[in-house]
Amino acid sequence: MAAMSKQLSEQFSEQLGEHLAALAALLDERGMLLDAEECRPYVTGARYGNGQALAVLRPTDANQIAGIVAYCAKARLPLVLQGANTGLVAASTPDASGNLLVLSLERLRKTIEVDAVNRSVLVDAGVTLQELNDALEPHGLFFPIDLGANPSIGGMIAANTGGARLIKYGDVRHNLLGLQAVLLDPPGQMLDLLQALRKNNTGPDLKQLFVGTSGAYGVITAAVLQAHRLPQQTATALVVPRDQAAVLQLLQALEQDFPEFLAAFEGISGACLDAVARHIPDIGNPFAPEPVPEYCVLIELSSAGSPQAMGVSLEDALTACLEKLFGDVIVNAVVGRGKELWRLRHAVSEAVRQEGKVIAFDISMPRSALVAFRGEALGLVDSRHPWLKVMDFGHWGDGGAHFNMVWPADAPLAYDAVIVGTLRHAIYDLVVVKYHGSFSAEHGIGPYNQAYYHRYISASAQQLSGKLQNLLDPQRLLGVTWFGEEGER
Amino acid sequence: MAAMSKQLSEQFSEQLGEHLAALAALLDERGMLLDAEECRPYVTGARYGNGQALAVLRPTDANQIAGIVAYCAKARLPLVLQGANTGLVAASTPDASGNLLVLSLERLRKTIEVDAVNRSVLVDAGVTLQELNDALEPHGLFFPIDLGANPSIGGMIAANTGGARLIKYGDVRHNLLGLQAVLLDPPGQMLDLLQALRKNNTGPDLKQLFVGTSGAYGVITAAVLQAHRLPQQTATALVVPRDQAAVLQLLQALEQDFPEFLAAFEGISGACLDAVARHIPDIGNPFAPEPVPEYCVLIELSSAGSPQAMGVSLEDALTACLEKLFGDVIVNAVVGRGKELWRLRHAVSEAVRQEGKVIAFDISMPRSALVAFRGEALGLVDSRHPWLKVMDFGHWGDGGAHFNMVWPADAPLAYDAVIVGTLRHAIYDLVVVKYHGSFSAEHGIGPYNQAYYHRYISASAQQLSGKLQNLLDPQRLLGVTWFGEEGER
Repeated sequence: MAAMSKQLSEQFSEQLGEHLAALAALLDERGMLLDAEECRPYVTGARYGNGQALAVLRPTDANQIAGIVAYCAKARLPLVLQGANTGLVAASTPDASGNLLVLSLERLRKTIEVDAVNRSVLVDAGVTLQELNDALEPHGLFFPIDLGANPSIGGMIAANTGGARLIKYGDVRHNLLGLQAVLLDPPGQMLDLLQALRKNNTGPDLKQLFVGTSGAYGVITAAVLQAHRLPQQTATALVVPRDQAAVLQLLQALEQDFPEFLAAFEGISGACLDAVARHIPDIGNPFAPEPVPEYCVLIELSSAGSPQAMGVSLEDALTACLEKLFGDVIVNAVVGRGKELWRLRHAVSEAVRQEGKVIAFDISMPRSALVAFRGEALGLVDSRHPWLKVMDFGHWGDGGAHFNMVWPADAPLAYDAVIVGTLRHAIYDLVVVKYHGSFSAEHGIGPYNQAYYHRYISASAQQLSGKLQNLLDPQRLLGVTWFGEEGER
Repeated sequence: MAAMSKQLSEQFSEQLGEHLAALAALLDERGMLLDAEECRPYVTGARYGNGQALAVLRPTDANQIAGIVAYCAKARLPLVLQGANTGLVAASTPDASGNLLVLSLERLRKTIEVDAVNRSVLVDAGVTLQELNDALEPHGLFFPIDLGANPSIGGMIAANTGGARLIKYGDVRHNLLGLQAVLLDPPGQMLDLLQALRKNNTGPDLKQLFVGTSGAYGVITAAVLQAHRLPQQTATALVVPRDQAAVLQLLQALEQDFPEFLAAFEGISGACLDAVARHIPDIGNPFAPEPVPEYCVLIELSSAGSPQAMGVSLEDALTACLEKLFGDVIVNAVVGRGKELWRLRHAVSEAVRQEGKVIAFDISMPRSALVAFRGEALGLVDSRHPWLKVMDFGHWGDGGAHFNMVWPADAPLAYDAVIVGTLRHAIYDLVVVKYHGSFSAEHGIGPYNQAYYHRYISASAQQLSGKLQNLLDPQRLLGVTWFGEEGER
């Protein structure tokens, strides 16, 4: 830009003004934000990403989006899509160039249509998870992907979120019956796949293209989701396994006794438990007066069946099962107190942040690899960087692990991004190469994971993903994530 | 061919001979079949399709397949893929031209690797469902897509089969963790996505391209599947609802009481029940001495949990639930006799065939539409063609319906394909246009449903599906199904 002549530069901004005016004409009076202050929430990511936007577009229906996309394709204006902007990989915020338009879906939230008999719901992409669940609740239903944040449905699909109960309900992909998207080619074409069908084998399932692709393949405008019946009873326990191998024995024992009810199986290291007890008011060590254990597992059984009809108390059944395992597999347990135990679990991230600079991981692997991986990774950290505090927790039930560490303020070395980068590579190498796992279990790619994508995804998969992206977005106007090979960017 | 000069024709067959020799060189001595008798099982479909093959290729590993694909791409030889050849839409058999090679995956069945802790299994594409379940059984596991046939795993993925217990376990797509495929472009490239992960958000989920696309997008060579624990107790009942509306009330009542256990909810019309009682030895009317009811529903609850741990008898609970519904929702019920009742259910197709020429439907819709659709469709048939006997049954739990009819031998008119075609269109119009359902719930497209695909799938979806097919198979060498627009074929 510095080299641009004054005349060209004036011509350029005049043209830009025309573009913005043309886009504004497609929207209502609250449809375009230009003021830097007003734009700030849209250019700052929930965890990473802090850029600049040419403008923020806030359409209220899918036809406006089709118009925006058609115009942007003609004028070659790049877009980044944003739902509730709760993602953790900077996929929904613009880069620093200031050339990108933010296309916010937050005002696309007219429709929430529940079909109780079909257990399905038609929703606009901007509807938030909380709004959706509020609308489902009177029907005794809910959308079972539960997360700490309150994302939009479109964002949840684009990120294919999982949540703490994936082992019982699956991820978003498993509960997506229909989808509507606006395509970039032909520009602005509507792809309407809004069916509410559990069985429909009439060719390629095109909606899958838009799941987990961070808005790089098209603009999701609406969806049909499968709803589930609200739990009528739950049983919760925090259990201390005898050792690490016993965690998997415990998981298998619970799947043997309660395969349909096991809703969560969350490992929490003693370091995390200890941090919660020290930093979070009103939450103590639940095992007191005994000391914080080395490791524990939060278990939840749930059933949406009426306890009378089932004739079973999950808490009694869980207690009996744990008693059976006592000594051999587990050495301590707190049963009940569900609210308190989940509060503890959800406080882990906040408590760990209080311990120093967090080095976060969002990995997964076959469940059978979790014990070996954890042992090896602990050894690796200890031998290389003994001052780092591993504070890990994870969704053992679905193979997920947050092998997080903290760089304490009182470490012998100041925080060093190069050391962290090298360590991150070493851990990812273990996960992906040795244990056939994933370097991004839940959070997606986005700019934050772009380099790891190129490092760990096979060349053939990158080639095909890039071809798909070029097919769906030939001008590469959409999103900030590139799924092709690095050299093709 | 008739117009081809003798010289050209000789040159052509000489070249063909070279091609076959080159392909044979990639295979072992049992790897290529040329003899018409030996080829017959490979060119005849399970229900439709009766063609001719240039040769049948029977590779034993994925590398041989890569070699075959590379050679065929260079020589422009078209291929049709075949697993166990149990599909019902002629998608796995060659057309009549005699120009297609059949690429049979039946010998690709070395690997069945069970990971019991991860509840997953790595299998070669040619492994059959039965072989897989035999290998899973010692681990207390099974693959829960149960079908009348014994398909290969690759074929099940290519068809995205559902089965009678979809309501509890989902379809193949829901239980597919990883996949390996040989691509047509670059010719013979291996796409290895063989992960055993429940959570992995690292870009587009490429394996979805190969699910439900009848082998038109690539050659599936291996997969990782999620296994489930084998049921430890089941409860079965055949129930007579008060009327059609009561069928959905019954479904909702069961989902309210037993949401995690409801494994099957299969509607059977009185006409089907009556045909089974008359044609199938040793199966009578289960409600005798009362007459065959107008409609009944086969219910199965199942749990993989040990009855002791759960402390619940599903049969007792089901009985109590049905007693509660008696009078208001249901008017008769047989509880227990699971084996006998499922035998009855599985005998329906055979019994209906004995009644005359079958006009079969494989449709689905939102469950909330099933009653209205059935009423309207019965009226339509009765008003237009009163001699046709509707003998319908269906998977009400997942919205599936086999609205089958029989053209009896003693009808006033002889069977007339034009009348049947017109009626089929009218029923499909009802299903797809009025009730937002699907004209092919389980069986897929294939040549048999090709015309309906073009009629009912939106232009934008056909365009995108065709672009994908051209991207994945630029020379259009693979399969016999075309997912693009009719004019682009």
